[in-house]
Amino acid sequence: MDTVFTNRSHGGTQGVYTHQSSATGTAMTFSVFVPDHAEGAQLPVLWFLSGLTCTYANVTEKGEYRAACAKAGIIFIAPDTSPRGDAVPDDDGYDFGKGAGFYVDATQAPWAANFRMRTYIEEELPALIAAQFPVADMARQGITGHSMGGHGALTIGLRNPGRYRSVSAFSPIVSPLNCPWGEKALGGYLGPDKAAWREYDACSLIEHGARLSDLLVDQGEADNFLHEQLKTGLLVMACRKAGIPAAIRMQPGYDHSYYFISTFMADHVAWHAERLIA
Amino acid sequence: MDTVFTNRSHGGTQGVYTHQSSATGTAMTFSVFVPDHAEGAQLPVLWFLSGLTCTYANVTEKGEYRAACAKAGIIFIAPDTSPRGDAVPDDDGYDFGKGAGFYVDATQAPWAANFRMRTYIEEELPALIAAQFPVADMARQGITGHSMGGHGALTIGLRNPGRYRSVSAFSPIVSPLNCPWGEKALGGYLGPDKAAWREYDACSLIEHGARLSDLLVDQGEADNFLHEQLKTGLLVMACRKAGIPAAIRMQPGYDHSYYFISTFMADHVAWHAERLIA
Repeated sequence: MDTVFTNRSHGGTQGVYTHQSSATGTAMTFSVFVPDHAEGAQLPVLWFLSGLTCTYANVTEKGEYRAACAKAGIIFIAPDTSPRGDAVPDDDGYDFGKGAGFYVDATQAPWAANFRMRTYIEEELPALIAAQFPVADMARQGITGHSMGGHGALTIGLRNPGRYRSVSAFSPIVSPLNCPWGEKALGGYLGPDKAAWREYDACSLIEHGARLSDLLVDQGEADNFLHEQLKTGLLVMACRKAGIPAAIRMQPGYDHSYYFISTFMADHVAWHAERLIA
Repeated sequence: MDTVFTNRSHGGTQGVYTHQSSATGTAMTFSVFVPDHAEGAQLPVLWFLSGLTCTYANVTEKGEYRAACAKAGIIFIAPDTSPRGDAVPDDDGYDFGKGAGFYVDATQAPWAANFRMRTYIEEELPALIAAQFPVADMARQGITGHSMGGHGALTIGLRNPGRYRSVSAFSPIVSPLNCPWGEKALGGYLGPDKAAWREYDACSLIEHGARLSDLLVDQGEADNFLHEQLKTGLLVMACRKAGIPAAIRMQPGYDHSYYFISTFMADHVAWHAERLIA
């Protein structure tokens, strides 16, 4: 792992790091914010998975999480959304290929060689963090994310019971099986057999028995993607049917941007802190 | 004035606007954050002048001011740092020409036609704000800024006694007469006669009798520009000699970036609020 830069910020250290990923076969860049802490102390970890077109940089620059994480004593980690580089295949659309990994392990050519973001986020990067950041208490992890990254947070949380003490999301894609973004991405990465898509669909995972102890979601009512792509109502129904206590908050006037995310970031950090810090 | 976009954020409206400036002879773009307020209410205004290379966008995206301004009930305005456009003369350096207006009215060719940021910030934009934003209480204004914009805030505050109830700065250039950035910019915009530079030099203005009722400055100790360009010590001495009560806080480990600015933004907003909201 190499350090790209570190900056002192909000009484902690905001770093950006790069490493060669075996999962994706490429260099991968991510950011980590570590609040000041006593020597030998360990702090819980909150993962933030970003949305379409984003890198680690969007939330790192615009997410407004540092004050809340410094106050609560939480490490904040922001990975990239896909492999990058000239050797990595891409698509003309913003919603497939680079910047659009969808947190799946692709099975279809030419994507399968590099687009293995599920393994990267579930296995490789946590192992790297545990090895490189002794301050990180990997027994206390929470996960959240935005849009495609909200989909990532929900599905990764649902597939790994006990791994994450807390799961939340900002304007998540709740059912890739039922929206154009999902049709394109999962069809491309996984092929036409929709049975293979189910483990990457939060609503389908819940319907088939996966559970979260509780859930916090914020969704802007003025979000242009709400009705065609995000379909928050499907998650409301799935949680209700499954008996998952879910605070799914519709926020009047808010859209899909970081102006929305940053508004509710401190709420989410505090919510995770309640579950990560006993 | 045209609206570029508005976004709901932190319980208020973050807007970006453009207008044709008579001061600069160009289109100018600025941002305004207006917290929610009762109909007919007026809110005080805090100006933020940005540093070299910046537009309104840097602080608008990375400044983390909205939560604090919404809480205090303060309007936050971020102008551009220079005229823009193909017809505007420029320099190869990042520290002169576009993105580097230094908040002066240039007198030298070819700069004098467009580079009139003093008139723009002191006269034209406040008049536009008063006309277009009835919610803005122009009898209660504060001003702050970063680096070149800290220089702008200090000199504009010092030259206009009674106009601003509160003046603060982040890592300001305190004496353009005594640093390479100032030598290049004021020499270029105002010509070689340094007598003409004095009204654009905070330390010189104080030495010649200009006063602030008090002052808050934050300056990172790990700022690469501290010793050659910013020279905070000159401001400390000038304020001490003049009897200006100044909290000039050296912040260990912090640099010149928005990771620093965002850390202390809430402090500055609260400090201005104490002076703007009786």
